[in-house]
Amino acid sequence: MRTIKITLEYKGTNFFGWQKQDGKRTVQAEIERALFDLTGQNIEVAGSGRTDRGVHALGQVASFEMEHSIPLANLKIALNDLLPPDIRISKVEEKADFHARFSAKQKTYQYIVQTGGQRKAIKSDLVGFYPFEVDFQKMQSAAKLLVGKHNFHGFCSSETAVKNFEREIFDIKISKRGRIFKFDVTGNGFLYNMVRIIVGTLLDVGRGKLCEDDIKKALATGERKYAGITMEPCGLYLKQVKYV
Amino acid sequence: MRTIKITLEYKGTNFFGWQKQDGKRTVQAEIERALFDLTGQNIEVAGSGRTDRGVHALGQVASFEMEHSIPLANLKIALNDLLPPDIRISKVEEKADFHARFSAKQKTYQYIVQTGGQRKAIKSDLVGFYPFEVDFQKMQSAAKLLVGKHNFHGFCSSETAVKNFEREIFDIKISKRGRIFKFDVTGNGFLYNMVRIIVGTLLDVGRGKLCEDDIKKALATGERKYAGITMEPCGLYLKQVKYV
Repeated sequence: MRTIKITLEYKGTNFFGWQKQDGKRTVQAEIERALFDLTGQNIEVAGSGRTDRGVHALGQVASFEMEHSIPLANLKIALNDLLPPDIRISKVEEKADFHARFSAKQKTYQYIVQTGGQRKAIKSDLVGFYPFEVDFQKMQSAAKLLVGKHNFHGFCSSETAVKNFEREIFDIKISKRGRIFKFDVTGNGFLYNMVRIIVGTLLDVGRGKLCEDDIKKALATGERKYAGITMEPCGLYLKQVKYV
Repeated sequence: MRTIKITLEYKGTNFFGWQKQDGKRTVQAEIERALFDLTGQNIEVAGSGRTDRGVHALGQVASFEMEHSIPLANLKIALNDLLPPDIRISKVEEKADFHARFSAKQKTYQYIVQTGGQRKAIKSDLVGFYPFEVDFQKMQSAAKLLVGKHNFHGFCSSETAVKNFEREIFDIKISKRGRIFKFDVTGNGFLYNMVRIIVGTLLDVGRGKLCEDDIKKALATGERKYAGITMEPCGLYLKQVKYV
């Protein structure tokens, strides 16, 4: 049995997220269908984690076991041939004892948002929109409060089954080009909607609706009401998953 | 009665083209619905021309007549509020005796294509794909043959009701950045699929599958078989319509 690691890119707009669900178009289901078409076998694919409906990936990682002896280079070509254009596999490796979810050490999500001005139609499903102008320095400064090991209960959607809310954020990088801001958030793991709430909170601080004290309160009390809005999924990209 | 000129941008992916069709989501139908919601009246909107399913617009122009006295600036805001995010109106003007189709003098279409390499998932519906590497100089040189007044019957899809195939192309600009080529084709009007066939022909020349003689034959005989492939709609943008 071979263990295969794949790195892939997808545009989330027309998927009901990563995870397989009856009768719905999902990324996991498309990959498993392609593997079935290729091998004739039902192969279960594990992702590094789920992504929600409308969320994109630049560097999602998945793994599966297969018996088929197809060479790696051909496996990449064959899968890309069998997959729709909104999923592309960029890398295929063979890696013993690898599991995309359990082996993951660090993830980086990127959020791209236009602040103020008029929303663009062409990229309406690739860039989030925040209708106000924001202050870069205020957001930079507020982001530092979130870096480190914290209880992120206040930055998590209530629809979660998770029990442990401690996560570590290693870094939040913010860059700006005109009205477009990019937030790169790197951590050891993320709660449900956590990146979208972190970005919404930083934007609310940048706009002057929230201040650093609100972030401190949200971290200290774990109460969602002190944090900012949940940004829409279309601006969110799973950028990179690290394993070593 | 006021005559209104609007300039708009749309992402064509989720529309069955510009033109109203029963039960289908089209750009014209969405704008007419928004105008009805705003005014309570059935207002017919004329576009500068149709765009096909999957084709985008950066600067489509449309016109309509309305009695409603709403100020122009508010009309723009109200319509954008009532329209879906994949249609955005960038400009609203009041212009007596203006008709978006009949007054049009010149149109520029842009085609964006990735040549060779692996297709990207994220922009799979915004950039066309041509699976071969192409020679920039060969395409530049071949493009000159198409500029001018010609019978473009050989560069037109057979599904057309048009009788006169003479059109004038004023300019074809090609630019390159890595594997991405942009073709800006400006003319006084275009036949069905004409830009997509022109770009497919130039790419086929750039790849070495066709040569300049094939273009000359297609122009001289009007036979479609001498021209190149029809590129997919997703890379095509109606960039600008000029009226003076």
